[in-house]
Amino acid sequence: MTQHSPAGYFANRTINELADQLRAGLVTAAELVRGALDSIDELDAGLNAFVTVDRQGAWQAAAKADAELAEGVDRGPLHGIPVAIKDVIDVAGLPTRMGSAHFADYVAATDAECVRRLRDGGAVLVGKTTTHEFAFGATGDSAHNGPSRNPHDTSRVTGGSSGGSGGAVAAGMVPLALGTDTGGSVRIPSALCGVVGFKPTFNAIPTDGVFPLSQSLDHVGVLARTAHDCRTAYRVLAGLRSSFCHETGEAARIGWIPPGTLHPTDPRVERIARAALDVGGLSMRDVELRDPVGIHKAFAGIQYSEAYAIHAERVAQNPQLFTPDVLELLGAAAKTTGWQHVRSLRARDQWRSEVHDLLSRVDLLATPTTCVVAPEVGQREIEIDGTVSTVRGALLSLAKPWNVAGLPAVSVPAGTIDGLPVGVQLACSPGQEDLLFAVAARIGT
Amino acid sequence: MTQHSPAGYFANRTINELADQLRAGLVTAAELVRGALDSIDELDAGLNAFVTVDRQGAWQAAAKADAELAEGVDRGPLHGIPVAIKDVIDVAGLPTRMGSAHFADYVAATDAECVRRLRDGGAVLVGKTTTHEFAFGATGDSAHNGPSRNPHDTSRVTGGSSGGSGGAVAAGMVPLALGTDTGGSVRIPSALCGVVGFKPTFNAIPTDGVFPLSQSLDHVGVLARTAHDCRTAYRVLAGLRSSFCHETGEAARIGWIPPGTLHPTDPRVERIARAALDVGGLSMRDVELRDPVGIHKAFAGIQYSEAYAIHAERVAQNPQLFTPDVLELLGAAAKTTGWQHVRSLRARDQWRSEVHDLLSRVDLLATPTTCVVAPEVGQREIEIDGTVSTVRGALLSLAKPWNVAGLPAVSVPAGTIDGLPVGVQLACSPGQEDLLFAVAARIGT
Repeated sequence: MTQHSPAGYFANRTINELADQLRAGLVTAAELVRGALDSIDELDAGLNAFVTVDRQGAWQAAAKADAELAEGVDRGPLHGIPVAIKDVIDVAGLPTRMGSAHFADYVAATDAECVRRLRDGGAVLVGKTTTHEFAFGATGDSAHNGPSRNPHDTSRVTGGSSGGSGGAVAAGMVPLALGTDTGGSVRIPSALCGVVGFKPTFNAIPTDGVFPLSQSLDHVGVLARTAHDCRTAYRVLAGLRSSFCHETGEAARIGWIPPGTLHPTDPRVERIARAALDVGGLSMRDVELRDPVGIHKAFAGIQYSEAYAIHAERVAQNPQLFTPDVLELLGAAAKTTGWQHVRSLRARDQWRSEVHDLLSRVDLLATPTTCVVAPEVGQREIEIDGTVSTVRGALLSLAKPWNVAGLPAVSVPAGTIDGLPVGVQLACSPGQEDLLFAVAARIGT
Repeated sequence: MTQHSPAGYFANRTINELADQLRAGLVTAAELVRGALDSIDELDAGLNAFVTVDRQGAWQAAAKADAELAEGVDRGPLHGIPVAIKDVIDVAGLPTRMGSAHFADYVAATDAECVRRLRDGGAVLVGKTTTHEFAFGATGDSAHNGPSRNPHDTSRVTGGSSGGSGGAVAAGMVPLALGTDTGGSVRIPSALCGVVGFKPTFNAIPTDGVFPLSQSLDHVGVLARTAHDCRTAYRVLAGLRSSFCHETGEAARIGWIPPGTLHPTDPRVERIARAALDVGGLSMRDVELRDPVGIHKAFAGIQYSEAYAIHAERVAQNPQLFTPDVLELLGAAAKTTGWQHVRSLRARDQWRSEVHDLLSRVDLLATPTTCVVAPEVGQREIEIDGTVSTVRGALLSLAKPWNVAGLPAVSVPAGTIDGLPVGVQLACSPGQEDLLFAVAARIGT
């Protein structure tokens, strides 16, 4: 076990602090790019968070950001901030490899809409991060460019699919990264790497220019060191005005979903996640789910059907280009029937209706983000409290309900077990994001 | 070939005329029920339009209707009018057999919402009409109670699945019947039997209490002798105020979809249908469809997936209770994959978008209703202009696009070939129903 301390330039710097320092002339965008690139040079050989580093593009963007600030042009809270982009999201002029041998030669012609919004907001793109092949996996260790590795223990996974984004933020190589989240792919690496990850309401950040995994479950999300940094980035990406968060997160009513109803959960993980919510003023009570199996069925039927609709021709023509991992999932996906898909869509409607009811009685719903801490790279089964389960199930089961529901959800560091981070997850109704971020910020402190 | 003249009591009476006569005291609801029941007694042995006749209920309802009118209680344009109900629609206290041995013992406890609206409107329910088993077929000749037969030639099908409703109106046994229409099941029997059939915008008439075939394609519709009678019944069923139709249907712009782009079509059928639109003032031009195959794929993938989701357990447990016909369709339905269903949903979105564009350039879109006149009972293949096709394809192909689009569509008698009726079909945007009915009324005259 190779223990790393997160040691990059951004390990102790938040976006909101950097924004102040940039405007006070205490730091320049060029210095932030140097910090990012130096950290990548120092740390990434062991972590494999990046698949592409765009040094020239980063320097140019930083120079422009500094020149604009000097001229009084202020593009908002991400002006001059280095950002890493998950490699399923198109950045004009750079390859989008998607962790796959199928797209080894593909170079994006135009920016994804979320990338365009970052650029318009003055952000400085430093590179593309390792993704589980086609974002179809929760571990981040099945990628054509090799596994991303956990900064807390490089023998362990980052979690996925936005694994490189999780590792890059956790190691302090960048203060912000974009990810995508179809069943937890932003929140899972955030939890396993000990950072904050947020996925918004379905479609709040457009997915144009993002390679799809499962269109009705796909979300673009953000990973950063703090909840307020996630909020800042989210508002830029969603096209919302930047604003002070007036919510204090006091007296919020939390509904705790006992994770065991969704999947066997390491009792230490559950204890730490739940204890993290024991901050003054929050009230908490257990809530019971009507049909947890229905949520799993809805997710599987929808994800499988939509994913295979995307990959059917690739599977037929070039199956050998897939990793065995993803090819096996696609094999299961191919077998999902149309009538099962129809029932999955109905089960989704039922879960959405149930969540709507639950969130009329509490402000936030909470679980651990994952059932376990980071597994070993390559590990596919895991024993939890005497029961053997798939790693896939242990990582996805608590996160995916919020993709099925399409609701905002955040993962926040709750503590560690033997040095490995544990995340606690909070979900809310659309429009309650400020409350969500405020409570998340209180947990971290 | 046994040629019948339509000879029932209602063969030459319209709902709108009867409504006037009821209020003028020239006829009573009881006399209308006697007309209906006598016609059924005289004609139905040869036609099998009815599976259940509710003599007692009809007499009671007629007595009530007459008493109310005498007291000055007027429930609107269907007050006292006899109506037949397709046997997939629940009528409290009567069996709903659905043409199936699976439901031999099922008696409905409550009225379907559409039936409730008819009763509230004073209509007099006389019985349930023969349906193709589970409404899953376009011929009307696969039913546990035997085939419904075409009043114009009893060796021929009525078309389906609302075959009994088509036969009952065409033979003059009732002036109005309810049907359901998932791929043409109201319009096809209307065309083959020589009556007017209308299906409204998706969900304009609620389907609560109607046994589903394919929920996102199912529509409740009406069959009557004239377009204005359909309009009258539609407005009652959709919960709209009764009103005079101010549209004249003059100068409407018709887009003709050459039927051969959707399916091989009997050239005589095409000629007669097209010539029926040659009434003064209408302008007509051909429109080209971008992706006719996409419409067929959308329909098949959606109908099959939704239908099997309804019947999966019945197929697994009691396959022998299905007719071979429907069991074969369900076998194909079971094989539809989830990813094909996803692509079907996308193809539906594309067709909807295309129709929206088309209907911004013309007022109505037109085709023949079916590609052929009524085939023989039991016939499953048909030669059209030298090409052998399935009867199913020849009957459904021109009608189902409007189920996929979810738009209002009407079939109107356009003429005959060797005594067998040909229908012309018109479709419109939601909100343009009065124009549709007005043009349809001009065609008939």
